[in-house]
Amino acid sequence: MRAVDERYLTSLKLTPSERPGLGHAAWRARSPRVLERRVQAIEATRLGQGWIDGDVGHGTAYRFTTPEGHQMEIFWEVEWYEAPGELQSRLPNRPQKRPGRGVPVRRLDHINLFAKDVKRCGEFMMNTLGFQLREYIEARSGGYRGVWLSVSPMVHEIAFMYDEAGPGGRLHHVCYWYGYPHQLWEVGDLFRENRIHIELGPAKHGITQAMPLYVYEPGGNRIELFGDVGYLIFEPDWRPIRWTEDHIERAAQEGGLPWLGGSFPVEYWVYGTPAAQIGAESTAVASTE
Amino acid sequence: MRAVDERYLTSLKLTPSERPGLGHAAWRARSPRVLERRVQAIEATRLGQGWIDGDVGHGTAYRFTTPEGHQMEIFWEVEWYEAPGELQSRLPNRPQKRPGRGVPVRRLDHINLFAKDVKRCGEFMMNTLGFQLREYIEARSGGYRGVWLSVSPMVHEIAFMYDEAGPGGRLHHVCYWYGYPHQLWEVGDLFRENRIHIELGPAKHGITQAMPLYVYEPGGNRIELFGDVGYLIFEPDWRPIRWTEDHIERAAQEGGLPWLGGSFPVEYWVYGTPAAQIGAESTAVASTE
Amino acid sequence: MRAVDERYLTSLKLTPSERPGLGHAAWRARSPRVLERRVQAIEATRLGQGWIDGDVGHGTAYRFTTPEGHQMEIFWEVEWYEAPGELQSRLPNRPQKRPGRGVPVRRLDHINLFAKDVKRCGEFMMNTLGFQLREYIEARSGGYRGVWLSVSPMVHEIAFMYDEAGPGGRLHHVCYWYGYPHQLWEVGDLFRENRIHIELGPAKHGITQAMPLYVYEPGGNRIELFGDVGYLIFEPDWRPIRWTEDHIERAAQEGGLPWLGGSFPVEYWVYGTPAAQIGAESTAVASTE
Amino acid sequence: MRAVDERYLTSLKLTPSERPGLGHAAWRARSPRVLERRVQAIEATRLGQGWIDGDVGHGTAYRFTTPEGHQMEIFWEVEWYEAPGELQSRLPNRPQKRPGRGVPVRRLDHINLFAKDVKRCGEFMMNTLGFQLREYIEARSGGYRGVWLSVSPMVHEIAFMYDEAGPGGRLHHVCYWYGYPHQLWEVGDLFRENRIHIELGPAKHGITQAMPLYVYEPGGNRIELFGDVGYLIFEPDWRPIRWTEDHIERAAQEGGLPWLGGSFPVEYWVYGTPAAQIGAESTAVASTE
Repeated sequence: MRAVDERYLTSLKLTPSERPGLGHAAWRARSPRVLERRVQAIEATRLGQGWIDGDVGHGTAYRFTTPEGHQMEIFWEVEWYEAPGELQSRLPNRPQKRPGRGVPVRRLDHINLFAKDVKRCGEFMMNTLGFQLREYIEARSGGYRGVWLSVSPMVHEIAFMYDEAGPGGRLHHVCYWYGYPHQLWEVGDLFRENRIHIELGPAKHGITQAMPLYVYEPGGNRIELFGDVGYLIFEPDWRPIRWTEDHIERAAQEGGLPWLGGSFPVEYWVYGTPAAQIGAESTAVASTE
Repeated sequence: MRAVDERYLTSLKLTPSERPGLGHAAWRARSPRVLERRVQAIEATRLGQGWIDGDVGHGTAYRFTTPEGHQMEIFWEVEWYEAPGELQSRLPNRPQKRPGRGVPVRRLDHINLFAKDVKRCGEFMMNTLGFQLREYIEARSGGYRGVWLSVSPMVHEIAFMYDEAGPGGRLHHVCYWYGYPHQLWEVGDLFRENRIHIELGPAKHGITQAMPLYVYEPGGNRIELFGDVGYLIFEPDWRPIRWTEDHIERAAQEGGLPWLGGSFPVEYWVYGTPAAQIGAESTAVASTE
Repeated sequence: MRAVDERYLTSLKLTPSERPGLGHAAWRARSPRVLERRVQAIEATRLGQGWIDGDVGHGTAYRFTTPEGHQMEIFWEVEWYEAPGELQSRLPNRPQKRPGRGVPVRRLDHINLFAKDVKRCGEFMMNTLGFQLREYIEARSGGYRGVWLSVSPMVHEIAFMYDEAGPGGRLHHVCYWYGYPHQLWEVGDLFRENRIHIELGPAKHGITQAMPLYVYEPGGNRIELFGDVGYLIFEPDWRPIRWTEDHIERAAQEGGLPWLGGSFPVEYWVYGTPAAQIGAESTAVASTE
Repeated sequence: MRAVDERYLTSLKLTPSERPGLGHAAWRARSPRVLERRVQAIEATRLGQGWIDGDVGHGTAYRFTTPEGHQMEIFWEVEWYEAPGELQSRLPNRPQKRPGRGVPVRRLDHINLFAKDVKRCGEFMMNTLGFQLREYIEARSGGYRGVWLSVSPMVHEIAFMYDEAGPGGRLHHVCYWYGYPHQLWEVGDLFRENRIHIELGPAKHGITQAMPLYVYEPGGNRIELFGDVGYLIFEPDWRPIRWTEDHIERAAQEGGLPWLGGSFPVEYWVYGTPAAQIGAESTAVASTE
């Protein structure tokens, strides 16, 4: 699958599975030389798994996992998308026309993973792949409750949040970006009319300042839709934004978690895929309506 | 006070009071002749109180109450607003320039009142003032839980909702209209930054399909801000929309009350002004932050 | 054809014709009694043509023309639309679900006609059908260059503009309403990608303050799409807004015609349907791209 | 001056001058080491001018010019903005509260310069400062009519366009970014009401796909306001988008230059600051209203 503004052949691959969850996440290196350097860094952590020949849309890739077993790949060679005649745009800077159906997403934005040791997972991404820490929630007990990391001016391409109800190593959500907040109202309306469960949103996050809508796809994975990516970071010596558990709890009491637009239901904090054992009832949430 | 697009001198008058609540609501008749006819209809109900000489912005007015004592007035003569030179618009169809401050509301939209006998209050407005029933919630026990009434293509200029925690005769909220949903995010941000309590929203109602944001003004009255007035009614033989308690409860269970954007907190159903005796803790809600 | 929010069976009927133009415009009376009264008023003008049995979506109708021969009908009986199962909305106040295709228009908004004697046509609509004058452009020579008329709080359901290049009695455009200005950018993008000629917009009119986008449908008629209907009029003693030719010309010189978003091309003032003799080249405009 | 979302002390410095124009543009290096490398590259071109002690908001800086004399600086040390108490946001990731006045811009986005040799200026920025070519217009005669360059996923932080009416080395415009297209309508309205000349917009560019509004500040410089920055580039091996003069001219004929929202007036192509000799009448444009 491919979002409308994406230039590579594909950004999402669905594979048959008995349970929902993340098959793997894949990253493109900035150059062949960078790929080599990143693979060396991963191998030094003993979390590397070796090379594969390639997959739909990309060439040889190196497989590895995070410290909690989230499966990942990194590669350089990609196939670019070529729109067939009737989908070609009149604008040479567009990979294709905007389709005349639905409220089409424009770009895969980020992935959010559940982890037992959030700090360790975040540091792995920073040390091996060059991500930078943008925002984090400091736990009272020490350690982090959440980290938001990026290799670009975006606040995050990946986040880890504390998996309090499960074993870690799970998927929290995958996020796609629209252009404008208003499109979340339109797509939210389509979801409601068609009995797709909306967990939260349209809303505005405090952390990242993005504007989300969370739904569950039919298989049970949580999908976030972004009406606004929040702010951009151009400062090379960025000072990571520190949130504390106190701050978060106070905001929740004051009705400001998220910053605007409702409140997080409990399932947001405990439901991930695959569902945890205790999460049997959480999974059921996906088919309430 | 006057909203930016309003053409009369004023639409809201603040009076000092020990307790928050509605002083009175006032309506302009369509013509002097209609005024006369409406007054006769009111007098026939024995809820009339007689004429007063006028008030800021309008001439002689007839005072009356609803069956539950909500104080009202009706008049014909009004004073039109004349913008002073520096506020005059270049567009002859604008009463004034849009101010360069804040996210200014454009028009007083409607009033929503708490009542013990919703049906009776609604019928009073229909029989004496010519309002039409647009939408209503039918109670399981018979009677109505809520009615939305208008004398124009708007879905409502007045609504009554069941006052389950109080004695009826109270104010639920007053609503002002902006132009676009997006302005609710902007004003919501200003509210959050400045510690004004947001009860709900930005959201989208199922009933009326309007897009609300509810806050409490410093005195404790609930104010609704509308990013969208919902739909318009041009059908002269409109068939009032019937909702049932079953429908509403099922929607609430499914996370669709409101239609989009969070869920109604309990205070929405019980807090009105003046606060009910049992509402001592409800009143406190207004100053949580 | 029917727009998404409309409650009657149909609002637009296409009929095969050798030339583009308006077949007829039709109005629904407020009641059978009003219908009778309006027909009497029309008959008194000798512009009545008598009753027809009905048409798709409505019952017996009285046919008449404006003083310049624009064909019209008025009726009371209509057929209401009933959505088939799969198109039914979960909201009882919606005639149907929003479709998952395109950027669907919500409601037929108004019609704009070219006339040689604008004032006379406007007065005909006021005297026989009860329209009220909302805004007008006064010509230097006396008479009007344009009138905007309504029977509701909308600024217009019908307008007449001076047909300087043609014989009068023609169609300038038909307008459909979306919900928000942003949807004009989205639909404008679809038009550009698919080589539909855009005459003007997204823009903001000074007169009416509406937000338009003008295109030509494949048959050559001008269609306006509204991202915002402008302001609403609730004052029963509305004072019609007077514009002068001086004002309009000065605005044009200053780059403020329309108020925002480009400038009217010459074709806007001269092209109507059917095309005038001198308009052979204007008609060609519709197929430029 | 500083836009609302900016984290450094200042992004725009106004200096008294007899004529409008660009004093200098300044860039921050990614690190002290990068600064050193960039300065060496500049010195090799003989366009370097040496170090200065610093300025409001930044430390020692190296001064240089483009091949056409546009004055620039590069530095590493900056002063970060600290909001005073009453302007502090409740969100730790915001440099300050959104002000309650106007429609405040969020970030300085890019600068656009007029040049006689567009290709040479673009190559200078690429070779010495590491910019990447994102889009360009190829001239029939060879050479470029315009180039758009960036060091981030933005399509441009700097552009050069062919100065057909002047000597090159001039300013075309400076651009600030809002968050959403709708804000351009709001600020455009403020401009129109207050007689600030709008040159173009709200519109949508084909090149960069950004959504602009162009005005002249009272001193005569062109300011662009962005309601949308267009698309983002995450592909490390980006293939620069090639436009031809044919393409641009055809788009203009078809009414698609810009892509949506009006057409470029002649002044857009010829007016820059300082005004060229032949541009005496162009300068006058700024005070038409």
